[in-house]
Amino acid sequence: MFGGALVKQVKIFDSTLRDGAQGEGIAFSVEDKLNIVRALDDIGVSYVEAGNPGSNPKDLEFFARAKELTLKNAKLCAFGSTRRKGIAVEEDANVLSLLKAETGVVSLFGKCWDLHVTGILNATLEENLAMIEETVRFFKDAGKEVVFDAEHFFDGYAENPDYAMAALSAAVKGGADTLCLCDTNGAAYPTDVKNITEKVCAAFPSCSIGIHCHNDTGMAVANSMLAVDGGATHVQGTFIGFGERCGNANLSAIIPNLELKRGVSCLPEGRLAMLTQTARHIAEIANVPLSGGKPYVGHSAFAHKGGMHIDGVSKLSRSFEHVSPETVGNERRFLMSEVSGRSTILSKIKQVDPSLTKDSPETMWIMERLKQLEHKGFQFEAAEESFTLLIYKELGLYRPYFELISFRVLGECPFPSDDYSASAMIEVKVDGTTEITAAKGQGPVHALDQALRKALMVFYPTLAEMRLTDYKVRVLEPKGGTAAKVRVLIESTDGEDVWTTVGVSEDIIQASWGALVDSIEYKLLRDGQSSWQ
Amino acid sequence: MFGGALVKQVKIFDSTLRDGAQGEGIAFSVEDKLNIVRALDDIGVSYVEAGNPGSNPKDLEFFARAKELTLKNAKLCAFGSTRRKGIAVEEDANVLSLLKAETGVVSLFGKCWDLHVTGILNATLEENLAMIEETVRFFKDAGKEVVFDAEHFFDGYAENPDYAMAALSAAVKGGADTLCLCDTNGAAYPTDVKNITEKVCAAFPSCSIGIHCHNDTGMAVANSMLAVDGGATHVQGTFIGFGERCGNANLSAIIPNLELKRGVSCLPEGRLAMLTQTARHIAEIANVPLSGGKPYVGHSAFAHKGGMHIDGVSKLSRSFEHVSPETVGNERRFLMSEVSGRSTILSKIKQVDPSLTKDSPETMWIMERLKQLEHKGFQFEAAEESFTLLIYKELGLYRPYFELISFRVLGECPFPSDDYSASAMIEVKVDGTTEITAAKGQGPVHALDQALRKALMVFYPTLAEMRLTDYKVRVLEPKGGTAAKVRVLIESTDGEDVWTTVGVSEDIIQASWGALVDSIEYKLLRDGQSSWQ
Repeated sequence: MFGGALVKQVKIFDSTLRDGAQGEGIAFSVEDKLNIVRALDDIGVSYVEAGNPGSNPKDLEFFARAKELTLKNAKLCAFGSTRRKGIAVEEDANVLSLLKAETGVVSLFGKCWDLHVTGILNATLEENLAMIEETVRFFKDAGKEVVFDAEHFFDGYAENPDYAMAALSAAVKGGADTLCLCDTNGAAYPTDVKNITEKVCAAFPSCSIGIHCHNDTGMAVANSMLAVDGGATHVQGTFIGFGERCGNANLSAIIPNLELKRGVSCLPEGRLAMLTQTARHIAEIANVPLSGGKPYVGHSAFAHKGGMHIDGVSKLSRSFEHVSPETVGNERRFLMSEVSGRSTILSKIKQVDPSLTKDSPETMWIMERLKQLEHKGFQFEAAEESFTLLIYKELGLYRPYFELISFRVLGECPFPSDDYSASAMIEVKVDGTTEITAAKGQGPVHALDQALRKALMVFYPTLAEMRLTDYKVRVLEPKGGTAAKVRVLIESTDGEDVWTTVGVSEDIIQASWGALVDSIEYKLLRDGQSSWQ
Repeated sequence: MFGGALVKQVKIFDSTLRDGAQGEGIAFSVEDKLNIVRALDDIGVSYVEAGNPGSNPKDLEFFARAKELTLKNAKLCAFGSTRRKGIAVEEDANVLSLLKAETGVVSLFGKCWDLHVTGILNATLEENLAMIEETVRFFKDAGKEVVFDAEHFFDGYAENPDYAMAALSAAVKGGADTLCLCDTNGAAYPTDVKNITEKVCAAFPSCSIGIHCHNDTGMAVANSMLAVDGGATHVQGTFIGFGERCGNANLSAIIPNLELKRGVSCLPEGRLAMLTQTARHIAEIANVPLSGGKPYVGHSAFAHKGGMHIDGVSKLSRSFEHVSPETVGNERRFLMSEVSGRSTILSKIKQVDPSLTKDSPETMWIMERLKQLEHKGFQFEAAEESFTLLIYKELGLYRPYFELISFRVLGECPFPSDDYSASAMIEVKVDGTTEITAAKGQGPVHALDQALRKALMVFYPTLAEMRLTDYKVRVLEPKGGTAAKVRVLIESTDGEDVWTTVGVSEDIIQASWGALVDSIEYKLLRDGQSSWQ
């Protein structure tokens, strides 16, 4: 069902790190943010809005670190407000913070709803227009690309269309490159969005027109689509839809809708197949569950349960599938008899043994093993190094670096001493020699980590270079509360390289142990110890 | 933003128990189904589609039991297919099963997409029309109200509109009361849905026209809305949106959208305020998490985090809220964080002691304490009940329910027995009486949770009603790896209420302990145990 859309190309503006961070329970470390920027750049969004240096001074640290990144597709953008009333723009502390972020693009929000100007800002309508124009001009004079975020545009337009349009005019006079129409309260109506966007496009033909929707009535995706039908060429959202209240427009639905349903290009050629892995990667970093029913990218999005549906899809996939799951990097699942196939894994396998093809029996075994492990709750998208180890194991190239004889961890309260509640004792064997040792730690996993590395350093001194940099726990089946199955991800570094490993168990110590062992073995593998190959 | 909608009243047709049951991980007992029927009847939907006796013979047991129910608003409906090809309708086993359900209403699905008729059913186009007409007539002759579910109507209409319309004509000839246009594959486009619904309404003025959408492109809510704009007066969906693949149209968004945004009545007067409790009740029975960001009914749907938003809402609620949360039985929340400012915190304090003002010294202390705790890594926005306990403590209203003497947890590998690696021993004192006990668990936290509740149930039997439903761990300062400071969030329920508590420590056991203790104390506080005031 192609529309007669005039728009053939749209720029995707991702605000996962800014508006997404307003979502309940969302908090990013600087390291998390850098990882998400890389993922968004890899899939090829046009803009990454990554922080608000004025309201959150810690964001300046992120922007300083972000200069290390070499981005291939995305422009980095910092977000801020128009200047405060009654102050010169060059003396406004928030404006100056925004400048200090040193991004090529800034997004500036300004009031477009007269109610907000007089009722919240306590400014006059004229003063607000001056605030918009002067702030935009300040950043244009500083050489920036400026996106003007027209806050509450649709609500403002409904009550006072002349003033809402005057706010846009002020931004245009200041030199804004893009006018982004924001449905800040998230309740605009799809056909209204289309009609109003058409009017704005006609009134400001020299600007690119954008859309920024929230999901308070469950229509953010449709509203974004209809804005593009109305002429918008810039679409803001968050990659998996989280954000304040009910969230922002979900880009992982909008992007494939635009590309596959409307013939509007959003990403560089060939990147749409990265959609599912990117969504899952971001969910993992943000430590939020990705609902199974998420359009296109959810685990259940192409899962068929009804017998007639399974029968139909088996005969003719389009009978019950609106697109082929491979198009977006997802996979079809029949819930009674799981069937999966994935060709992207081959590239990983070829890194270990370039002679293998997709038809080699080794490839089949690895795929089969991967399927079993994913069924158990492993997820290798955010733990590629555990997957590399798996390939070595399945190809018979693996000889363990050590053998565990036993460990025992003890946690006590009141604390026995030193603010450490936990201690661990461990015995390992390497090449026939055993080593037994113990360590204290801040909790059982830390004690175990300390004891294991202490024991192994006797045999492998390079382990002294290594440290763990992140430790994440995700509950997989929340039903059981503290007895739920958990997935542990451990990120490690030796100063040169960073790697992530995974462990899964109903027992958090066992899950952590699996990830710890993988982490140490990967380090030794990289160091080219003789046990490999 | 009212449209010029012609439709003033819509009948809501809930399929949670039929199409919803096709969702991954959904399974209802007969008791579950009876409970959900009661909840849907209480809020006042017009139809409850409760099973498919042909494909699921166990559903007949449900329909037999359902006769006990006295429904005030809803009509019960059983779902089935048109007769099979090459067989007389009165000899078709599925048709006869459907009749046996003895509901006043039946919904019958029939093929409208020629591709399905010839490619999946292997029937001729003419035979399929006869199957539709004869099956509808059979049930009309039996005195039933008949809803004809026009399967794949929009896909069929796009490829062969004449045939799709001919299928509807066949149902009308058979005597169908309602023609429900189904977007079975979930990818119809909103403006197409509106246009096509208008055409169908014009062609069949004597029937009521319905809409049944799926959410594969994230637009099921918008598609349902635009169908009503096009003239539909019957809307199918599932109450909280679950269903096959990406789910069905989410009625808990559609109902308030229709009533509050379009002036279309759906429920009996005054029932909209039951929306949130009904959604949460159904989620609880179905044992699925209700995402915080769910429009209207989610826990975060009216939760404000950004400082400017909180300031705005405090001055003028409609500045950042599209409807008042009370309208749908939800509540406004200012997320407890240091950026949220004093007025937010004050509203929480006033729930405990209404005499306090923002200038009371107690308010200052609590603010100061909150700031200290947030600096340490506590986060109360997702753990309001821990904050409530904090207020009690700071106001001197707290007397602990128990005293911890000591605990000790032990984790071992290889597993000592039973696949449990961990055990815990605990000694507590209540009113001078000590209790010592032990438990095993899947990891140290689970063992500790089990042992603690076992010990306390001796004194507080209502703790038996309580269970932990989620356990989240977040690393706060990733630099230290497994020694990092961690925040633990625990979600608990006693079937009536859900609450979340938080603990922070560099020691994961200590952090979990803090959250566990808060969770238990909050339950006892709610139960009105004597230690509180």
